[in-house]
Amino acid sequence: MSRSAPPPHAIDIRVYYEDTDAAGIVYYANYLRFAERARSEMLRGLGFSQARLRGEEGRGFAVRRCTADYLLPARLDDLVTVETRVTGVGAAALGLEQRIRRDRQSLVVIDILLACIGREGRPRRLPPALRAAIAQRFPTPTDIVQKTP
Amino acid sequence: MSRSAPPPHAIDIRVYYEDTDAAGIVYYANYLRFAERARSEMLRGLGFSQARLRGEEGRGFAVRRCTADYLLPARLDDLVTVETRVTGVGAAALGLEQRIRRDRQSLVVIDILLACIGREGRPRRLPPALRAAIAQRFPTPTDIVQKTP
Amino acid sequence: MSRSAPPPHAIDIRVYYEDTDAAGIVYYANYLRFAERARSEMLRGLGFSQARLRGEEGRGFAVRRCTADYLLPARLDDLVTVETRVTGVGAAALGLEQRIRRDRQSLVVIDILLACIGREGRPRRLPPALRAAIAQRFPTPTDIVQKTP
Amino acid sequence: MSRSAPPPHAIDIRVYYEDTDAAGIVYYANYLRFAERARSEMLRGLGFSQARLRGEEGRGFAVRRCTADYLLPARLDDLVTVETRVTGVGAAALGLEQRIRRDRQSLVVIDILLACIGREGRPRRLPPALRAAIAQRFPTPTDIVQKTP
Repeated sequence: MSRSAPPPHAIDIRVYYEDTDAAGIVYYANYLRFAERARSEMLRGLGFSQARLRGEEGRGFAVRRCTADYLLPARLDDLVTVETRVTGVGAAALGLEQRIRRDRQSLVVIDILLACIGREGRPRRLPPALRAAIAQRFPTPTDIVQKTP
Repeated sequence: MSRSAPPPHAIDIRVYYEDTDAAGIVYYANYLRFAERARSEMLRGLGFSQARLRGEEGRGFAVRRCTADYLLPARLDDLVTVETRVTGVGAAALGLEQRIRRDRQSLVVIDILLACIGREGRPRRLPPALRAAIAQRFPTPTDIVQKTP
Repeated sequence: MSRSAPPPHAIDIRVYYEDTDAAGIVYYANYLRFAERARSEMLRGLGFSQARLRGEEGRGFAVRRCTADYLLPARLDDLVTVETRVTGVGAAALGLEQRIRRDRQSLVVIDILLACIGREGRPRRLPPALRAAIAQRFPTPTDIVQKTP
Repeated sequence: MSRSAPPPHAIDIRVYYEDTDAAGIVYYANYLRFAERARSEMLRGLGFSQARLRGEEGRGFAVRRCTADYLLPARLDDLVTVETRVTGVGAAALGLEQRIRRDRQSLVVIDILLACIGREGRPRRLPPALRAAIAQRFPTPTDIVQKTP
């Protein structure tokens, strides 16, 4: 990613008991919950809450593919930051890189491919206003139309 | 509960990492997940899966009140048993006692009041066939009609 | 609770997909996760993070009893507030009332009894500094020593 | 995978309300919980419960990398099967393919790389007896020593 890339969307998340497991660290699936909170807040920041997307537009996002690299564990009471970058946009798809950090350390790096779907679960085009808002916030050349299933 | 009470419905549940927290024991809210699994299986055993109840009958159960006494903790890899007894039936309500055991030790005792609701979330009468199936399996004199909100 | 009662501790929590279930509302056990987050933040506000309590003091809190009244459901994207009041203090126990609100509506009211425990899981006295901090923030006459198991 | 490959380890898992979200399907992170249950049961079937591994051997498994392809959603009350195959073994690592099916349909395919770690969180060699049990159950030529971090 070039130096001129826009700053990522970022939210802070506190680690509570519910997030940890008997190994004393955050349970591996729970980082995906953190990532989804960050995606929901990124959408909200663009003016599209998940509830509005579902209610007004009849649209939602389904995860098609997700890769998570676990570098270091987060622990109880840690304050982590989830950074989200849009890395690709297609007619009905969105590619994101999400990085969970504690201070300057990357803990987990997640690559995710989302499909925009309608109420019936079939792929549907991204709402144009959302597409425009994403393009303004994350001007990115990558086109992932062909990756859409 | 008298000696002649019918045996409770019982299911076994294994404790996995997901259920535990950094204190090394099952996280307190997760016992309620175990209890809900047991309620779903009890209903299934009576011929009423949650999906069928929602789909065909437009009915579901909402928890109105729940009291949990935590006596002893469950730990990773424990095999616990959830025993469920119907302790009261009303026109639109169901009272249950659920006991989570490990061998002969009671770990958590849960008293729960369920309301039967329709699609719109309002109280609705229990489907008569379900009511009959409950009465046959758990012949109990308690009437909790008046507790229904 | 008299008019002169101190204001409760309060935190805001956003409802995400992870918190909801197929009934379209927050899953009943997840309100207890919200409540635990609020307790952790209340302790942090008093200068005692859960991690510090465990690490330096060898202390933690175990839930002994929990009663939840479910009045109204929270839904996706709701912003709810969890208010926490200390209602009783004992040598090794803490009683709390936690109220989950959306605007002025009470959604769930939780009464909870916590036991202060040591590393080995046995009841231990509250650290005096924590006890003092609680007494200053929540001056309450209730003594629950005798309720401790 | 050749026709002569050993059959995968398989467990059945019922989908409960706790697993679903407001979109009416299983929440994407929860398939990883199903996968971890299956891994724990596979280990138990080989004679190594997670608790025994931690207690006697001071060993555990940490997820290093996880890729999930979401093909079709599971829904409330579905009975799904998680199939687990060991696809690679290293000195301190284990590669698995986990497939979540409903009848003959693949819903989610998960590739996972586990690191064997000691109490302090550093990579440690697989216990020889576990390594032997794996080799007997899943005779696989792939060597992933070099992938270990």
